[in-house]
Amino acid sequence: MLRLYDFHESGNGYKVRLLLAQLGLDYGWTDLDIMHGASRTPEFLRLNPNGRIPLLVLEDGRTLAESNAILFHLARDTAFWPEDPFEQARVLQWMFFEQYSHEPYIAVLRHWHLAGTLDDHRHELEDRRARGEAALDVMECHLEDHAFFVGERYSIADIALYAYTHVAEEGGFDLSSRSVLRAWLERVAAQPDHVSITDLPPRQL
Amino acid sequence: MLRLYDFHESGNGYKVRLLLAQLGLDYGWTDLDIMHGASRTPEFLRLNPNGRIPLLVLEDGRTLAESNAILFHLARDTAFWPEDPFEQARVLQWMFFEQYSHEPYIAVLRHWHLAGTLDDHRHELEDRRARGEAALDVMECHLEDHAFFVGERYSIADIALYAYTHVAEEGGFDLSSRSVLRAWLERVAAQPDHVSITDLPPRQL
Repeated sequence: MLRLYDFHESGNGYKVRLLLAQLGLDYGWTDLDIMHGASRTPEFLRLNPNGRIPLLVLEDGRTLAESNAILFHLARDTAFWPEDPFEQARVLQWMFFEQYSHEPYIAVLRHWHLAGTLDDHRHELEDRRARGEAALDVMECHLEDHAFFVGERYSIADIALYAYTHVAEEGGFDLSSRSVLRAWLERVAAQPDHVSITDLPPRQL
Repeated sequence: MLRLYDFHESGNGYKVRLLLAQLGLDYGWTDLDIMHGASRTPEFLRLNPNGRIPLLVLEDGRTLAESNAILFHLARDTAFWPEDPFEQARVLQWMFFEQYSHEPYIAVLRHWHLAGTLDDHRHELEDRRARGEAALDVMECHLEDHAFFVGERYSIADIALYAYTHVAEEGGFDLSSRSVLRAWLERVAAQPDHVSITDLPPRQL
């Protein structure tokens, strides 16, 4: 059986949980307390030398890190990954946008809020907030003319971008005036077999 | 003909220039002065609303952003992208690692050095340097047992990681004691049709 090493508050982990649910795949789930070093133990570093969750372990023991690479692996040959080669590249374009221009601002500010460490980062807050708003602007600009990010259908590009956008308010981002973005969030949440970030699988060690 | 919007000092742009050279593809090349806002003009934002280079424009006018998505698009069906599905996911794993855990530290410190703005970021320098060193550690750990990042052959994972690693010293990272990493840099530089980051195509507006 597949096994996912994860942290229950992680949006990167939630991406994988959401796709696994929508694919109807069973998996073992290990919730690591990354706030207290559980992804930096010698045991976990043997699985992922980069010390990060999520990490997927396949049935044969091979490991795969990086949330968006895991999405690619699970989605291939399914409706969540387009058949058209250029659309595939566009899905990856949005997933790299997510990791470079979105997550470091929107997810990281949420993390600092949840961990109570905002004050340790006061010199960076204004810049991170501005860059997060800029990422939301880029998304809204695209969604003005599109129902989903690629090919007018729900794909892993939407899953990757939904994970931290739908909880951006937990990092202090105000989405109330972003009606185009909120309509897309609702379209994503209305997809078959959607699960929320708080719908957690049974914990296993 | 393909057209690449780029900035001559950019490692992200160099990734694409290197692969295009190794694929033997002709392309038009536009060098944008991103230090002075050339990627934020209304004209360029129409091509890439995220305001970043590199940007590839296909023969039919379609655009593709994000260096690693461009590598994927160009490499598919060539020897630079593996045939094995799991190896494909591993290539993407390393490319997401590059954009999330490597580029924001190693490339950004180089950028601040080159732009002369290190002092504006003094509160972040120690943390960025430590995270850059950690990324180099992860690469070395993998390369202890491997000639290249995936499948024991040169792929776009190597191109993505080579681009900023081979100029890491321009950002103040000392590679002199990292013999495993340096041996891999030499293997990459010895690939057929390799071009350097300073081998620039003819400029065109």
